[in-house]
Amino acid sequence: MRDLSSLPVTFADIEAAAARIAPFVHRTPVLTSHRLNAILGCEVFFKCENLQRIGAFKARGAHNAVFSLSDEEAARGVVTHSSGNHAAALSLAAGNRGARAYIVMPSNAPKAKVESVRRLGGEIEFCAPTTAAREAAAAAIVAERGATLVHPYDDLKVIAGQGTAALELLAEVPDLDAVVAPVGGGGLMSGTSVAVRGSGAQARLWASEPEQADDAWRSWRSGVRTAGDPPNTIADGLRTTLGENGFVILRALLDDFATVPETAIVSAMRLVWEVLKVVIEPSSAVPVAALLEGRFEARGRKVGVILTGGNVDLDQLPWQDAAR
Amino acid sequence: MRDLSSLPVTFADIEAAAARIAPFVHRTPVLTSHRLNAILGCEVFFKCENLQRIGAFKARGAHNAVFSLSDEEAARGVVTHSSGNHAAALSLAAGNRGARAYIVMPSNAPKAKVESVRRLGGEIEFCAPTTAAREAAAAAIVAERGATLVHPYDDLKVIAGQGTAALELLAEVPDLDAVVAPVGGGGLMSGTSVAVRGSGAQARLWASEPEQADDAWRSWRSGVRTAGDPPNTIADGLRTTLGENGFVILRALLDDFATVPETAIVSAMRLVWEVLKVVIEPSSAVPVAALLEGRFEARGRKVGVILTGGNVDLDQLPWQDAAR
Repeated sequence: MRDLSSLPVTFADIEAAAARIAPFVHRTPVLTSHRLNAILGCEVFFKCENLQRIGAFKARGAHNAVFSLSDEEAARGVVTHSSGNHAAALSLAAGNRGARAYIVMPSNAPKAKVESVRRLGGEIEFCAPTTAAREAAAAAIVAERGATLVHPYDDLKVIAGQGTAALELLAEVPDLDAVVAPVGGGGLMSGTSVAVRGSGAQARLWASEPEQADDAWRSWRSGVRTAGDPPNTIADGLRTTLGENGFVILRALLDDFATVPETAIVSAMRLVWEVLKVVIEPSSAVPVAALLEGRFEARGRKVGVILTGGNVDLDQLPWQDAAR
Repeated sequence: MRDLSSLPVTFADIEAAAARIAPFVHRTPVLTSHRLNAILGCEVFFKCENLQRIGAFKARGAHNAVFSLSDEEAARGVVTHSSGNHAAALSLAAGNRGARAYIVMPSNAPKAKVESVRRLGGEIEFCAPTTAAREAAAAAIVAERGATLVHPYDDLKVIAGQGTAALELLAEVPDLDAVVAPVGGGGLMSGTSVAVRGSGAQARLWASEPEQADDAWRSWRSGVRTAGDPPNTIADGLRTTLGENGFVILRALLDDFATVPETAIVSAMRLVWEVLKVVIEPSSAVPVAALLEGRFEARGRKVGVILTGGNVDLDQLPWQDAAR
């Protein structure tokens, strides 16, 4: 067993996170499908974080971060300049703590994301649609109001929180041969990796990423964290660049890493909707696509897949154009 | 408590069914959503039979019917002239028993239904697309091969099998104030009714039906089983006429019955996809539509909803036309 003691997140951190967030998040179901097993050639256990609160695993990390704050810190609020699932998750977690969540969003953010944050009680600060403007706006809130910045994936409490999904999966299916998840910023995959290795389970750790947003794969292979080409993938949750903590953990613990083409992501997404009967967003389909394409040594094995989220626009399904 | 002893299906039948089918069906999850509770004004527990094998609760009744046969009967096979979820369920159940399933289908049956039955090992006999031709073809198979006809909803073993979903729901949430399900042929609602009343639970029994396929509602109200107007609803699973056994049970046990317009069915279907993140077919949305429209005394109560199935054509979603 690899030495985990030098890593920035420990198994104890994940166990503590699990206890901390339990009152606020769903223990999501693990689903199986005979037909999907036949199609994928292995026995798959889907951990359905698309059925998590706010429709994504991000609720875990955000609650762990917010409930790890002191009362004094919580009273000054939290802030983020991510506008996706993490923004919704942070708004919910802050609300549950009775704290304010300041969400910095570009002025051109989609209406659905704005409404989702508002509904959950997040306070939106609009800014110009550039990374510099968003970072400056968030920094200003930290400076002026003393709010705590909660990074969407490179925050250690967030990573520990995301690892709790794998803990639950292992509790339900202890003898998995492998666990596979997608990599965007690396929060989920690194939390998952520490959870699996720290638990003593034998499962191998497989990461997956879109070919067209393969910075984490390149970084993992080369040993040098790089931003790579500008991402251009339907898997919008995976367009972020691998964080530093995620990089360190994935380099230490991953057993394999596959990248998949866009067409396989869409096929896998549709397959899960059609056969498993759950709504997943494109990012969630990436590990399924890797199995579908035979990118891992999965044949006949018991494989845990973390379905990361289910927030999609039902009017804009990726197979609609092709079908018309 | 009402007298259940005169009814055609007993609580003991349902308990026996649960034990009989357990190795072959999923114990489906019960999902909840804070946001749906807020929208519907009550605390809803969704029993997800859309996540059941073959994507519908019909797997329960079919397995109970097939595994109740003697070895001799099973050796002669089973037959049905229903071509929807029951055909798939019967094919699967027969396969699990090592028996043959003869599925009579009209020559114009949708390709997806044909493929689904074939994949599950059902043997399709095509006939002219009329009710008379289908019944004649099924009767011929019974006469010539000694196969047992398994009616999709008025068979007592089928009704008992469908009741097992409510048993599981009550085991998970014993203090429900009400259970609501849709009514097509009445197999699910009558099995559910016997399960709930027989268990001693206090939950009220609410049925729901499309306004445009309201024969069961008319029959329940009038006390005379009638076919009503030709059904014209998007909820294709509910176009059947209430069976005789279902009629007797629903008359004896139902507390309330609501009918809902098509627009509410589509809204409810989309709401479940969007918020609960599971794929349901229009029939499953009918009880949700009734809650959405405030048709029951549900405010603030704990309500169990049976989501019946998730078999839809992803290229033909009812909100697509409106969205274009």
